Order: sequence, then structure tokens, then C-alpha cells
Amino acid sequence: MVSYSNHKDDVLKRLRRIEGQVRGLQRMVENDTYCIDVLTQVSATTRALQSFALQMLDEHMACCVRDAVAEGGAEGDVKLKEASDAIARLVRS
Amino acid sequence: MVSYSNHKDDVLKRLRRIEGQVRGLQRMVENDTYCIDVLTQVSATTRALQSFALQMLDEHMACCVRDAVAEGGAEGDVKLKEASDAIARLVRS
Amino acid sequence: MVSYSNHKDDVLKRLRRIEGQVRGLQRMVENDTYCIDVLTQVSATTRALQSFALQMLDEHMACCVRDAVAEGGAEGDVKLKEASDAIARLVRS
Amino acid sequence: MVSYSNHKDDVLKRLRRIEGQVRGLQRMVENDTYCIDVLTQVSATTRALQSFALQMLDEHMACCVRDAVAEGGAEGDVKLKEASDAIARLVRS
Repeated sequence: MVSYSNHKDDVLKRLRRIEGQVRGLQRMVENDTYCIDVLTQVSATTRALQSFALQMLDEHMACCVRDAVAEGGAEGDVKLKEASDAIARLVRS
Repeated sequence: MVSYSNHKDDVLKRLRRIEGQVRGLQRMVENDTYCIDVLTQVSATTRALQSFALQMLDEHMACCVRDAVAEGGAEGDVKLKEASDAIARLVRS
Repeated sequence: MVSYSNHKDDVLKRLRRIEGQVRGLQRMVENDTYCIDVLTQVSATTRALQSFALQMLDEHMACCVRDAVAEGGAEGDVKLKEASDAIARLVRS
Repeated sequence: MVSYSNHKDDVLKRLRRIEGQVRGLQRMVENDTYCIDVLTQVSATTRALQSFALQMLDEHMACCVRDAVAEGGAEGDVKLKEASDAIARLVRS
């Protein structure tokens, strides 16, 4: 079980929208769109990816991390450490 | 003329690779991949988009901004201001 | 009780080092240091602040969040939501 | 000559305000302030540093980079490359 399994369609829809943004970037380049306008769309796509990541992290903590910690035992600590490492990668990327 | 017009194929190849990364994320979600592993790939995709943006900005400054400033006149200042705004969007996204 | 209470001296030492970096920036400006060199030090200071935040968040999750969730009840969810919001602020700053 | 030489006092005032924010963080830790509240202030301080960097970069481009490019010759390219590298450090930090 993963945290997004009961609303996978929404998650996929969101990723398809981001794929659409990247394809939009390709069309812009094919049409010789002005660099600055391409860059504006790159920033929008980056922000969309970040929001996607924040939502997934949210749900992962409220579900997988939460359950593992509530059960007690070492698994909770493993999950907390994993989440911390993922957060560090997000903050630094 | 845009700064990338003489190597458009490389730019498009790079964007297609990023599109491939976003499609890879969809496959991960379809296969119920563990949230943390999905997040690792999101961070990699975000970094790829950032590198793409930095290269495009680089070329834009070395070409469009440079030429406009070298010509003298107000156009150089317009281009510098545009570039600054794009940089602020990148830093904050 | 806060998560850093048993090693407050280390936390303060780290913040004093960051304060030293900001004072170093002031000396650079007073001495008319070249803008690019000032900017390099600003980037280093920003990274130091981010690392500080990541460590504090880590400890907060391994301590306050963990304990609240393990106890059961609504407090665990409150703490998880708070942590998620703090993470979003860090990722977006 | 550096780009900020004619308004050094403003630049220093801004840095002193950031120093004040870092000292505020120390007081928060000394007073056992709740981790999440400390983190909110760290995010605010990081954003202040980023705005400072963006302003300095702006002025550097509108002044040093602009003048070097306008003069023609290799110095303009050196300055553009330096600015690009500083931007990459900012985006990645």
C-alpha cells in the first residue's frame, strides 16, 4: 500500500498536466519563442513539480510515516529518517 | 532570432528527456511505487528543469542581452531588466 | 520541552556562526568588495541557513512529531500538519 | 568602483536587518521557542537574503556588466560568464 493508492487518478492527472507543460515548452522552442517567455514557462513547470512533491510528501507523512510511528518499534524511525532525507533533497533541488 | 536557434535540436532533445522523466513518474505511480522513490525522481526532474533554465538564460545573456547592450540605446536596459526579472522568478521557484 | 533543549549550545553556536557570516558580508560591503564575491558569500550563508533549518526539522520530527503520533489522538495529526506546512515554506523559500 | 558604491548605506542597513533576524533566531532558541516557530523565522531570513542577492545582482548587471559589454572587447564576455555562474549558485542554493 502506498499513500496515494486511493486517489491514483488525481495523481496521474496532475502528472499528465505537468507532461503537457513540458510538451508546451517543446512547442515554444519549435516556434522560436523568445527565450524569456520560455523561461517563464520553465519556472511555472518547476513550481508545479514542487507542489506535486509537497502534496505527495504530505500524504506520505500523514499515512505511511504516521502508521509506522503509531505501531511503535524501529520501523517508525526508519520512515522518519527516509522522510527527512527526501525533504532535504526537495529543499536543495 | 532567438539565442537557441542554431542548436534547436539539442534544446528539444533536452526537453524530450525531461518529458521522459515526467512520463517515468507516471509509470512509477501506475505501478504503486513507494512514495519516497517517486519523490527522489521528482527532485531529479526539478534539477533537470533548473539546469535547462540556467543554460537557456546563459545563452540569452551571452547573445540577445549582449548584442542589445553593445548596440547602445534603451533596448539594452530593457533586455537587462527582463533578464533580471527572469532570474528572480528562477531563484524563487 | 523543545526538540533542541538538550543540545542548545550547539544550536546557538551554529546560529552565531551564521551571524558571523552576515557580519562578514557587511565588512565586504564596507571594503567595496566586488559584487560577484559578495554574492558568492550570500549563497554560502543561504546554504548554511538551509542546513540549519533541515537539522532543526529533522530533530523536531524525530522528537515532537514522533512522540505526539506515538501517543495517539488528534495531537499527532496537528503536529504532522504543522511540519508539512513548515516544509512547504522551506521548499518555497 | 562597485555597483553599490553610491548607496552603500542602504546596502549595509539591509544587511544589518538580516543580522538582526539571525540574532532574533538566537533569542528564540535561548527562550526555548517552539521548533516550528523558529523554522518560520529561518524561512523569512532565507527569503531576506535571497532578495538582497537579487538586488545586488540586478545592480551589478545594470552597471558593471552593462558597462563592460558596452565598451566592447573580451571583458564584457568575462563579466557575463561571471554573472551566469553567480546566478547558477543562487538558483541552486
